[in-house]
Amino acid sequence: MIKNRKSVEEYKAGILAGDRAVLAQAITLIESNLPSDSVLASSLVQAILPFSGKSIRIGITGVPGVGKSTFIEAFGTILLEKGKKVAVLAVDPSSQKTKGSILGDKTRMEKLAADRRAFIRPSPSGSTLGGVSAKTREAMLLCEAAGFDVILVETVGVGQSETAVKGMVDFFLLLMLAGAGDELQGIKKGIMEMADGVLINKADGENIQAAKKAKTHYRNALHLFPPSENGWYPSVITGSSLTGEGLGECWETIEKYQQKMLESGFFEKNRAEQRLKWLDEYVQYLLGKAFHEQAKVQELLAAEKEHVKAGTLSPLTFARQLMDIFFESFQANRT
Amino acid sequence: MIKNRKSVEEYKAGILAGDRAVLAQAITLIESNLPSDSVLASSLVQAILPFSGKSIRIGITGVPGVGKSTFIEAFGTILLEKGKKVAVLAVDPSSQKTKGSILGDKTRMEKLAADRRAFIRPSPSGSTLGGVSAKTREAMLLCEAAGFDVILVETVGVGQSETAVKGMVDFFLLLMLAGAGDELQGIKKGIMEMADGVLINKADGENIQAAKKAKTHYRNALHLFPPSENGWYPSVITGSSLTGEGLGECWETIEKYQQKMLESGFFEKNRAEQRLKWLDEYVQYLLGKAFHEQAKVQELLAAEKEHVKAGTLSPLTFARQLMDIFFESFQANRT
Repeated sequence: MIKNRKSVEEYKAGILAGDRAVLAQAITLIESNLPSDSVLASSLVQAILPFSGKSIRIGITGVPGVGKSTFIEAFGTILLEKGKKVAVLAVDPSSQKTKGSILGDKTRMEKLAADRRAFIRPSPSGSTLGGVSAKTREAMLLCEAAGFDVILVETVGVGQSETAVKGMVDFFLLLMLAGAGDELQGIKKGIMEMADGVLINKADGENIQAAKKAKTHYRNALHLFPPSENGWYPSVITGSSLTGEGLGECWETIEKYQQKMLESGFFEKNRAEQRLKWLDEYVQYLLGKAFHEQAKVQELLAAEKEHVKAGTLSPLTFARQLMDIFFESFQANRT
Repeated sequence: MIKNRKSVEEYKAGILAGDRAVLAQAITLIESNLPSDSVLASSLVQAILPFSGKSIRIGITGVPGVGKSTFIEAFGTILLEKGKKVAVLAVDPSSQKTKGSILGDKTRMEKLAADRRAFIRPSPSGSTLGGVSAKTREAMLLCEAAGFDVILVETVGVGQSETAVKGMVDFFLLLMLAGAGDELQGIKKGIMEMADGVLINKADGENIQAAKKAKTHYRNALHLFPPSENGWYPSVITGSSLTGEGLGECWETIEKYQQKMLESGFFEKNRAEQRLKWLDEYVQYLLGKAFHEQAKVQELLAAEKEHVKAGTLSPLTFARQLMDIFFESFQANRT
């Protein structure tokens, strides 16, 4: 059981009052893997649900070295100046409890971390993307109930984390570099078509020309690709956390996007679809968790998985065997 | 139980002898939803597994109207002339038993359907993509064991079917049109980055110029996007089922791709990863099936799903409730 455990009412009151310490404790509760904590966490999220949702949710991705932390610090500061309250969350399944995540690392966003109108939280730790992103989503709802009206969700290209973040935000922003042919370095296939906006970063000093060139190329290229179902073509701009160039434009683009989507009804439609997808994903996650934690299943998987990989054991035959074992174990006793 | 039920040995002998009638009956067995048929089907697939895999697997997609059937007929004919044996399968979750699928429709590929060195099969019917693609995969293994060394898997953009087909083939081909700004009509976001090759179709008559222009644009655009992890940039060519232009080039491109991937080891690595992914997907599919077929789960879902969609019921809270009900039902009795 976590420390400083409160009642649902106490957490709720603190969150709605915008108490950042209580918010942090509530997120710690959300992140706990203990069943009794999970029950309390579920009740809390249900209780604050009516107060959530009043924000714009922005996903931010880009390869290591593109300058995400510096960008978030500079971008977040501009938003604070505009009167926003900014929460920074992260999805990083590679983070571990002892090591901490490089994302949402307050030491890399010191100025923002010190501002009371901002709230920064590292990624939950966890062994699966499903588990980690579920916790980040719930933390997002708590932040919204606490009055934060811009939620930035950071991710770095580990596994399918961009897809998970794309599924929980309104606008997905890709940061890229320009120059010396290294624009694409490390960007996974499929990410560019996922982006609602692309910002060519570090567009300052000697790099300005290369950045502007890249902007033109990518603007043209992305127009050759299908728009989103809401008709939006990804916007491409240049920016610099050093000079501040492009950051205001970035925010205006996001505002324009939100305006269009609200008017067309797509904004709410998208959020409603995301909620149903989250339900599906949670169900799959919980089913898969129970399945993989079952002792006999683990045994058989360890013994035979290599044969599936090698092509000597049919995946469907093996899956059916595992399923029989799993359901048999339930009739024996629930483990 | 299906008609003409044979023993595993009888099916296996017929398939290995290249008997097309037995192959068709075996695929019908694979497609059956009856538990006793599934058990027999699993044994059969396991038995022919060592004889499968000796083929190139090519996925083909494109919007309705792009000319898929005509392309497959023309392309398939060229492959037969090169001494190949060609199987044409399909993934179309919208197909229903009574209506039949428009994909793999023999009446649209009459010449090919009449050739004994070709084998055409419509998509399995089914209510979920997971169920349909699992059956198509198994049919693919049977076709390979029967000696077909080129497997074409057709799909049309329904739901996530392109992703499913991409996950079961070696090379993914996107057919597109050119001209009058309708190139992107109906193509879903994300499909272009999925393609290993793009063929601008109907490059004949008055349309030749537009097709060549589109080829240049897309070649340049796709070079601005990250290559596959195997280093391959999608190849873009023009083609016409009418004149035959580009079809030979299409095959040479696929051969070149296969050669490169075999040399680098990626070909086998990719197939091994696909097998493990199929195992994961089957497990998820079977778990989900058992879950959704459980009566109390269906009841609660029907009653409360709209509240999740509307944002008044937390997806995680609800998922946990459903999970409790599901596992409780197992301890009572296995339904």
